[in-house]
Amino acid sequence: MEKYLLYFNNEEIPKYVQIAKHIKNLIDSNNIKDGEKLPSIRKLSKFLEVNNVTIVNAYKKLEMEGYAFQKMGSGTYAKRKDVTRKYRKQYSDILKTVSSNNIKDYIDFTGEIACTEFFPVDSFKNVINEVLDRDGVEALAYQETLGYEGLRNSISKFFWNNHKDIDDILIVSGAQQGIDIVSKAIINVNDKVIVEKPTYSGALSVFKWRRTNIFELEIHENGIDLDKFEKILKKNKVKCFYTMSYFQNPTGMSYNLDEKKKILEMAEKYNFYIIEDDYLSELIYDSNIEYKSFKSLDENDRVIYIKSFSKIFLPGIRIGYLISPKKFKEAIQNSKVNTDISTSSLMQRALDLYINKGFWKKYINNLKIVYKDRYEFMKMCINKILSDKVTFFDPGGGLHFYLKINDNINIDCMKLFNECKKNKILITPGILFYKNIYHGKKYFRISFSQVDKLEIEKGIKIINSLLEMGNKYE
Amino acid sequence: MEKYLLYFNNEEIPKYVQIAKHIKNLIDSNNIKDGEKLPSIRKLSKFLEVNNVTIVNAYKKLEMEGYAFQKMGSGTYAKRKDVTRKYRKQYSDILKTVSSNNIKDYIDFTGEIACTEFFPVDSFKNVINEVLDRDGVEALAYQETLGYEGLRNSISKFFWNNHKDIDDILIVSGAQQGIDIVSKAIINVNDKVIVEKPTYSGALSVFKWRRTNIFELEIHENGIDLDKFEKILKKNKVKCFYTMSYFQNPTGMSYNLDEKKKILEMAEKYNFYIIEDDYLSELIYDSNIEYKSFKSLDENDRVIYIKSFSKIFLPGIRIGYLISPKKFKEAIQNSKVNTDISTSSLMQRALDLYINKGFWKKYINNLKIVYKDRYEFMKMCINKILSDKVTFFDPGGGLHFYLKINDNINIDCMKLFNECKKNKILITPGILFYKNIYHGKKYFRISFSQVDKLEIEKGIKIINSLLEMGNKYE
Repeated sequence: MEKYLLYFNNEEIPKYVQIAKHIKNLIDSNNIKDGEKLPSIRKLSKFLEVNNVTIVNAYKKLEMEGYAFQKMGSGTYAKRKDVTRKYRKQYSDILKTVSSNNIKDYIDFTGEIACTEFFPVDSFKNVINEVLDRDGVEALAYQETLGYEGLRNSISKFFWNNHKDIDDILIVSGAQQGIDIVSKAIINVNDKVIVEKPTYSGALSVFKWRRTNIFELEIHENGIDLDKFEKILKKNKVKCFYTMSYFQNPTGMSYNLDEKKKILEMAEKYNFYIIEDDYLSELIYDSNIEYKSFKSLDENDRVIYIKSFSKIFLPGIRIGYLISPKKFKEAIQNSKVNTDISTSSLMQRALDLYINKGFWKKYINNLKIVYKDRYEFMKMCINKILSDKVTFFDPGGGLHFYLKINDNINIDCMKLFNECKKNKILITPGILFYKNIYHGKKYFRISFSQVDKLEIEKGIKIINSLLEMGNKYE
Repeated sequence: MEKYLLYFNNEEIPKYVQIAKHIKNLIDSNNIKDGEKLPSIRKLSKFLEVNNVTIVNAYKKLEMEGYAFQKMGSGTYAKRKDVTRKYRKQYSDILKTVSSNNIKDYIDFTGEIACTEFFPVDSFKNVINEVLDRDGVEALAYQETLGYEGLRNSISKFFWNNHKDIDDILIVSGAQQGIDIVSKAIINVNDKVIVEKPTYSGALSVFKWRRTNIFELEIHENGIDLDKFEKILKKNKVKCFYTMSYFQNPTGMSYNLDEKKKILEMAEKYNFYIIEDDYLSELIYDSNIEYKSFKSLDENDRVIYIKSFSKIFLPGIRIGYLISPKKFKEAIQNSKVNTDISTSSLMQRALDLYINKGFWKKYINNLKIVYKDRYEFMKMCINKILSDKVTFFDPGGGLHFYLKINDNINIDCMKLFNECKKNKILITPGILFYKNIYHGKKYFRISFSQVDKLEIEKGIKIINSLLEMGNKYE
C-alpha cells in the first residue's frame, strides 16, 4: 500500500488528477503490474485522507485514459499502456537510418512480404493498359462500396470454387485495413480479445489503440493450449480471437485440422468470433501441410476472414478482401466507408484481369519454387551453423524462421539487433511481437524473403559470431 | 420523473441492465432529449427503490454504449445514438436501386465530386506507362510511411510555393481517411468536437463512431456566429473544430479572411485545433473570393489541413494529403500505419508525374470553365423557376446549391426526394447533413457536377412542379 502514498503539494491541480498521475507513473514504471488490482475506493480514500468521490474520479480518469479497467463487482485493475511502442519506435528509427540508397549494403533478414524482384512488371503493365483501354475513365471512377464486382467474382471463382456469394466479399486496402475496420465495427473499448503470444505487432497496435483488454495465449510447436484457451473463455466474455492460421507471424506455426475444429466449436459454445488473417498460406513447402482455412470449416458463421494480396503479391498494390459473418456484414461495410470510402479502382481492375489471365497462378507457382529453395537452404544453415546457440520450430512454409537464443548465451534481442546492424545485418527482435516487452527478449526472427543463398549463409555466419561473443557484451 | 418508472419483471436480467435498457428506449424514442440531464443517482435509486450502485452501473453501461456522457461534477447526460443512420441507409438503399445501368435514365443532382467525363484518360495512361518504364517494380513496392517523396515534393512546390517541409506532408487515401486517422490519433471517447451545422455526413459519421460529444454551430449566409462559438468554448474544453473552409458542404458557404483570423485566434486562446477539409477550393467562380486557407494563415500550428485529390481530380485514385501540427505528427503517422500501412504506390507516382507535366493545372482550368458555365446556368434556372418556392445562398464556387423550401410549401425533403425519384430525378435531402434528423427537413442540395444544361433546366422544372403540388401530398 505504501507505494500509493502521495503528498498533495500542488493546490492548483485537483487531487483526483494528482492521484491518477501518481498511479500512472507507478504503472509505467512497473511498480504496479499490468492487470494488478488497485486498492478499493474505501481503502485508498482512507489511506490518502480524501473523499471517496476523489478516488472514484481518479479511477475514472485512469479508465478513460486506458490505464485501468473495471470488472463489474470486482473492482478496478491496472492496464499497462503500450510500452512496446517505445521499442518499436527505436527499431523503426534505426531501420530508417538504413535508407533505400544503402539498403543494398545490408543483408536484410527483416522482410515480411514476398520480394518484388521476381515480379514480371511488363505483364502487369500490359494488364493495366488493357484495363484502361477496355474501361476508359470508368477504371478511375469511384467503385461500388463492396469493391469492383469483377474482382469479387474472380475471388469467388479462383479462390473459393464459386462457393462464396460475391455480395459477402468486401474489398479492402490490405490486411491491416481489414483488421482496423473489423475492430472499429465490432470491438468496443474494454472488450476482451485473445491473441496468440507472440503475434503480429500491427494487429496488437490496432487492439491497443481500440483500448481492448488483450489476453495473450502462448503458441508453441504443438499449437496453443486449448485448455488454457477454454479457461479464459469460462472466466471472461471474450469478443474475438485473432489468429494467423498458416505460418503464424512470427512463430511460423500452422494449426492442424483438429485444433481448428475445436476452436470453431469453442467459438460457438462461448459466443466469440475468429478473426482469421490468412497472409501467406500460398507458400506451403511441406507436403504434410494441407490448406484448410478456418473460414472453409466455418459452419456457424463465426469467422471473419481477412486475406491480403499485398504480402504475397505486390506490396504497393494495397488490396485485400474480407468475408464476414452475416451478422456483421453491414457494420463492417459502414466501417470501410467511414475509413476511406473505397479502395483504388484501377488497381482492383488490374488485379482482376491479372487473376483471370492466369498470371496470378503462374506467378505464385514461380515464387514457391524460389522460396522453397531458400527455405531449405536457410534451415540447413541454421542447423549447421547455429544449432548450439538457438532452437527453432520448422514452419514448413512461409517466409521466415523464429529463433530462440539458448539460455546460456547472455544476449538479448535488442542488443543482438544493434550488434547485427553494426555488421550490416538486419534482423527483427522478438520483443516487437508481445504485448509486454518483458517477453520475447531471447527471440529474433529472420526472413529469407529479400536475401539470396549467398547472403543467407554469410549473414547466419556473422550472427553466429555475434552470439558467440554473447557473454562478452556486458 | 414518471417516464423513468420501470417494473423489474425479469429476475434473470440484472436490474442495472434493465434500467439501462429502459433509458435507452426513452432516448431512442426521443422521450429523453439529446443532451438532457439524467436524474441524479440518489434521486433515481430512491425512485426505483434500488441501491445507488445499481444506478451507477446502469449509467456506466449507458456511457460505455454511447448513450450517455458525464460532465465532471455535474452529472450524467443523455446522448442520442446515430439516428440519422436509418435515413442515410434508406437514402443509399434507394440510390442503389438506381444501378449503374439505368443511371442514364435519371437526372442526377447528387454528385459530390467532379465529373470524370472530361478527364483525359489517354494522358493519364501515358503517365502510368512512363512511371512503370521509369521505376519498374519499385512503382509497385511499399512506399515510405509518409508517402512517395516525389509526390510530397510536388505538393510542396506546386501547392505551397515550396513553403512546406516535405516531411510535414503525409499522403493519405483520400479526405475520408484523413478525417478518420486524425480522429483516431487525437480524439478520445467523449472529447468535444464542434462542427458546422449542417455539415458533411462522412465527417459526422467518424465523430459519432468515435463517440465524441458533437456541438453543432449553425452556419448561414454571414458565416458562423463567432459569439456563440466562443460561448461554447468558454463552457467546454473543446478538442477540435471541423470545417470546410471553401464551399462548405452542403451550404456552399466560404469563410472570409476576418472570420478565419478570429477563429485561429480563438483556437490559440482556448487551446483547440482546426481540422480544415479543403475539398473544392480550386473551383472559385466569383472573383471576389480569394483563396487563403486556414493553414496558410496558421501562425500557432493549430490547423490540421486535409486535402483530397479524389473530389476534384479522380474519385478512383484515392489520394489526398494531410499537414498536421508538429505536436500530432507522430501520432497521426502511426494512426495511418495502423489503418492501412500506406497508400497505393503506383497511383502516387502517376499523380506526381501528372502534376509535374503541367497536366493537373490544365485539367483543373478546363474543369473550371465547364463548371462555371453550369453554375451560372443553374443559378439562373433556380432564380427564374423556383424563386417563389425556395431561398438559397449563392456560393460563388464549388459544385452545388443548397435550397431551403419556403415555409408555406408543405413538403419535407425525404418526401421530395421520393417524389423526385419517381420522376427520374435524384436530389440529396437535407437531413443527411445534421446530427439530428429533426433539422434539415426543409432543405435539399442539388449539384451540377454530373448534369449538362439541358438536364439542369429540365430537372429544375420538374422539381418546381413537385413543390407546387406540395400541399396535395398529405
